[in-house]
Amino acid sequence: MIEVEVKAHTYLDYTRNLLEEQGARFVESEHHFDSYYNAPHRDFAHTDEALRIRSRDGKAFLTYKGKKKDSISKTREEFETPVDPESMRNILLSLGFREYGVVEKERDVYKLDDFVIALDSVEKLGEFIEVELGAESESESEIEQKSKRIFEFLNKLGIGREESIRKSYLELMMEKKG
Amino acid sequence: MIEVEVKAHTYLDYTRNLLEEQGARFVESEHHFDSYYNAPHRDFAHTDEALRIRSRDGKAFLTYKGKKKDSISKTREEFETPVDPESMRNILLSLGFREYGVVEKERDVYKLDDFVIALDSVEKLGEFIEVELGAESESESEIEQKSKRIFEFLNKLGIGREESIRKSYLELMMEKKG
Repeated sequence: MIEVEVKAHTYLDYTRNLLEEQGARFVESEHHFDSYYNAPHRDFAHTDEALRIRSRDGKAFLTYKGKKKDSISKTREEFETPVDPESMRNILLSLGFREYGVVEKERDVYKLDDFVIALDSVEKLGEFIEVELGAESESESEIEQKSKRIFEFLNKLGIGREESIRKSYLELMMEKKG
Repeated sequence: MIEVEVKAHTYLDYTRNLLEEQGARFVESEHHFDSYYNAPHRDFAHTDEALRIRSRDGKAFLTYKGKKKDSISKTREEFETPVDPESMRNILLSLGFREYGVVEKERDVYKLDDFVIALDSVEKLGEFIEVELGAESESESEIEQKSKRIFEFLNKLGIGREESIRKSYLELMMEKKG
C-alpha cells in the first residue's frame, strides 16, 4: 500500500474547530507507544527506512516504511502486521537490530471524504496535524495529484505548503536529543 | 522459552501404536507450510539460527530460533509471534532477508505427562517423531536431565539415542537439494 502523507505543526484546538466546520467526522482517539529499531547491516538514518513496533491501546503492530518516494510529501511504501510486541522485540534484538528511539503520542483520528486526518499531541515535540490519502500506484503523476489535494485541504485550515514538515517524529525527536 | 527437543526417523504407523499403548493422548492434526529466511548480515547456515514464517491452518507465526545450546538434543532459545504472513514476508524481503527454503508437513500432536510428541510426515523427507520438553532455565544440568528423560521415553518406542537427528528439516531438505 502506498500512502501520501503531509505533516505540519499546528495548534490542535484551533485546527480541530476548523476541521469540524469543514464537516470532518471524528473516528477515534488512540494512544501510541512507538519503538523504533535500526538494522545491523544498514543505517536507517541514511537509507530513510523505518521499522517500528507500535503498541496501541492493547494491540501491537510491526510496521516497515520504505524510503520516501518524492521530494514534497512523505509518500512511502508501507507493510504492517499485527504482532505480540514482546516476542517481536526479542526476535528483532536476537537478529541484531537495536532500539534507538521511542515516540509516544495521543492521536485523534478524523475522516473527511477520502482524507484521513490525525491530530497528534506528541510527547516532548508538541502538536501536529497529519493528512493522508491512499494511492493505487507509485506513479509520480498520481502522487503529485494526491499531494496537491492534501495541500489544498491544508490551506483551508490555514496551513501553507511551506509549513509542511518532511521529517518523521522520530527524526524530530533525534534532533531534539542530539 | 527454552525447549529441549529430540528428533528421529520413524515409521509413523508403528510408532503411533506404541504411543497409544503408552497412554499418549491425541491433541490435534496440523498442516504446516514453513518458509525459511536468511539474513543479509550473517548466514544462518553458519550461525545455526533460524527465522521462519509458519502458516498453520489459516493462522501464521514468525519464529526465531537461536543456535543450539548443547551437543546432544536440539535445545534452542525460541521466540514466536502471530503475524499476517504476506505482510511479514514483505517486511523481511524489504529489509534484505531472502527466502531460501520451504518445508511442508502434516503433523499429529500427542501429549503424555509433560512430553509433547509430534508425528511428522514431511514432504520429500519422510516420517519423523519429535519429542519435546519445556525447560525453566538454560542450565546444562536441567537440559541434560530433560534430554535424558526424552531418550528414555524414545527407548520405550524402540528408538535408540544413536538414531536421533540433530539436523532441522530445513537442513535435511538443503542436503537433499544440494
